[in-house]
Amino acid sequence: MTDIAALDRADPLAAKRAEFLIPEGVIYLDGNSLGPLTKGAQARIASAVADEWGEMLIRGWNDAGWFTAPGRVGDRIGALIGAPPGSVTAADNTSINVFKCLSAALAMRPDRKVVLSDSGNFPTDLYIAEGLIAGLGGGHRLKTVAPEEVADALDEDVAVMMLTEVDYRTGRRHDMAGLTRRAHEVGALAMWDLAHSAGAFEVDLTGAGADFAVGCGYKYLNGGPGAPAFLYVRPERQARVRPLISGWMGHEAPFAFDPDYRPLEGIGRMRVGTPPVISLKGLDAALDVFDGVEMAAIRAKSISLSELFIAEVERRCAGHGLRLVSPRDPAVRGSQVSFAHEQGYAAMQALIARGVIGDFRAPDVMRFGFAPLYLSHADVAAAAGVLAEVLDGRLWDRPEYLTRSDVT
Amino acid sequence: MTDIAALDRADPLAAKRAEFLIPEGVIYLDGNSLGPLTKGAQARIASAVADEWGEMLIRGWNDAGWFTAPGRVGDRIGALIGAPPGSVTAADNTSINVFKCLSAALAMRPDRKVVLSDSGNFPTDLYIAEGLIAGLGGGHRLKTVAPEEVADALDEDVAVMMLTEVDYRTGRRHDMAGLTRRAHEVGALAMWDLAHSAGAFEVDLTGAGADFAVGCGYKYLNGGPGAPAFLYVRPERQARVRPLISGWMGHEAPFAFDPDYRPLEGIGRMRVGTPPVISLKGLDAALDVFDGVEMAAIRAKSISLSELFIAEVERRCAGHGLRLVSPRDPAVRGSQVSFAHEQGYAAMQALIARGVIGDFRAPDVMRFGFAPLYLSHADVAAAAGVLAEVLDGRLWDRPEYLTRSDVT
Repeated sequence: MTDIAALDRADPLAAKRAEFLIPEGVIYLDGNSLGPLTKGAQARIASAVADEWGEMLIRGWNDAGWFTAPGRVGDRIGALIGAPPGSVTAADNTSINVFKCLSAALAMRPDRKVVLSDSGNFPTDLYIAEGLIAGLGGGHRLKTVAPEEVADALDEDVAVMMLTEVDYRTGRRHDMAGLTRRAHEVGALAMWDLAHSAGAFEVDLTGAGADFAVGCGYKYLNGGPGAPAFLYVRPERQARVRPLISGWMGHEAPFAFDPDYRPLEGIGRMRVGTPPVISLKGLDAALDVFDGVEMAAIRAKSISLSELFIAEVERRCAGHGLRLVSPRDPAVRGSQVSFAHEQGYAAMQALIARGVIGDFRAPDVMRFGFAPLYLSHADVAAAAGVLAEVLDGRLWDRPEYLTRSDVT
Repeated sequence: MTDIAALDRADPLAAKRAEFLIPEGVIYLDGNSLGPLTKGAQARIASAVADEWGEMLIRGWNDAGWFTAPGRVGDRIGALIGAPPGSVTAADNTSINVFKCLSAALAMRPDRKVVLSDSGNFPTDLYIAEGLIAGLGGGHRLKTVAPEEVADALDEDVAVMMLTEVDYRTGRRHDMAGLTRRAHEVGALAMWDLAHSAGAFEVDLTGAGADFAVGCGYKYLNGGPGAPAFLYVRPERQARVRPLISGWMGHEAPFAFDPDYRPLEGIGRMRVGTPPVISLKGLDAALDVFDGVEMAAIRAKSISLSELFIAEVERRCAGHGLRLVSPRDPAVRGSQVSFAHEQGYAAMQALIARGVIGDFRAPDVMRFGFAPLYLSHADVAAAAGVLAEVLDGRLWDRPEYLTRSDVT
């Protein structure tokens, strides 16, 4: 049997747990949906409110670096995803960033009419593409294939290949470098949604040659509920981007109040309106937990945690009809593990009531996310134990768990 | 001479000042750019961070009302601007909301090609229109006339009349009801930016018949730097709005994860991505200062403050070349007063150094905003006195004031 205590003793990231404020008695396996609060983010938000907004008032734009925060935070995120300084900005939310990047990409391939995506993409990415295509009225269409069929569906009609690297339900991970190469071979642009990638494992946007990318600030980056998202434009492409949403924060001189729009040099042109300063400060502080950590170490521990979880669940919950819907091979899996169970919703409510917080995705998927900066092998093994108790004892079989009332 | 103390003794809003945290020694005349911190917002943000994000984690979406916050806060703002429940949502920033509303409006007038605006509009609104028009490639054009020429420029080519009610430089206020009526007479839609209106005086979107409106959460609504903005769609128009940015938070069932977009009934379809929860909570709490206050009382005091300021400045600063650039008639002025001075930039720096915080807009405009919930007549008279000292003593004539280094 696995020596769980030994795995934790040997964990080079173990000390990071002390930087998080996780409620007593909670094993938090939902950092893929909303990362937990860090001590640093709490303190920084309080200071941004009292010392910056409260004391500096309007002067905070200059004196507390509010204007430069989107680029500064963007560069810090860039360092985690293989993007050079000046290629990432924090901005808006992921959906809006998908819109901005997709519209820019389509304008770069005016003779092509297909946006290629897959059925494993997060629905909002598909909705954004639908709405943009309908509104442009330019004869574009969204073609959605199965994840394993994307490579074969790439042809010279494709303007943009728009994919989310990690499937939010199954955790299946695409081959970003391979698919990007294939997209470029047919002259398409490659746009990646890193919602479940950034902060979870190594991403190499530069090495993969990705053209555009977007991602989320509140999942593995722990920026807080509704934290600003981010977007990336490959440096060589930036000069050709003419933003469809062209706002003053992307203007060359926002405070010249020129009547005409002239885009900033570089990634800054992808900013639109006034940035959400308080949330940006929280995200900035949350990123401190990545200081001094190699993403490779996070990935190694993520695999160790998720392999342990799968092994423990399969050992302790055999016969209860659980089915692993995540890839068994960790090389093609993100940092989450999903099991299907016909009473998945109720079982998840029972788990949450016992302090093991994961989440549920219809029709039957129980999702468990593994964020190596605050989880131990002991946590993961204990979570598998609670799941076994719930299934062994049919503890899910209670009216309040069986009624689906919650929105998430 | 005006009995300033008597004015303050008779002020029905005087007690509201105690709800704000304004630094000792500061007279804050820049609430038209960034409203100050309230005690309630500070406490609520701290609680949203510690008790909601920190303790509830993912459960906050249901248990702390994170999902419903945009609509709830929207309705509270709606009550200040003459908009019925269900017609306003908090969302994104003002620029993005301009984009969403303008794109929706253009789609409702497919046979018309002109967006009519004026040279007093805030530049980002014009930039957004420029970018949208270029991106749509549908032969639209942005026609920008002088503010006093808008009525005459309305004709049957105009799809949308897009105006900001109060000019950010001069404080000149449009006749919203009259221009909206005139727009409707020629079959155009009317869209209003309330950035310098909401929270500053009575707005009656319903009475005026406005079709779309947007506005800012961090000026007179005191929501904090980069607080969420808001948007309004006239109830009768909502069913026909097909959002160009169609994201999951505007979907009928965001957690069904359908592959196809189906817009929510009502204003909710204008939401796009995950809302900025922490900032929304701050804005929600900031709105408490409007509880129990009639906007008419705010307007009456705003006029009293600004009339006093003009009188005091003109009396005490005569001969220094100041020129009132705001309308002298308060009926056509918002809640700000602007004076031009050839050394306006340096004079404003000297004022700020002495605790009187206004701001500057090129080429020579010193702006002073009057927010009646936290300013007294004594504050305003004292500010005029400091301006007189600065001009009398040529205190602006120092190298550090004369060099324009700041971005705001």
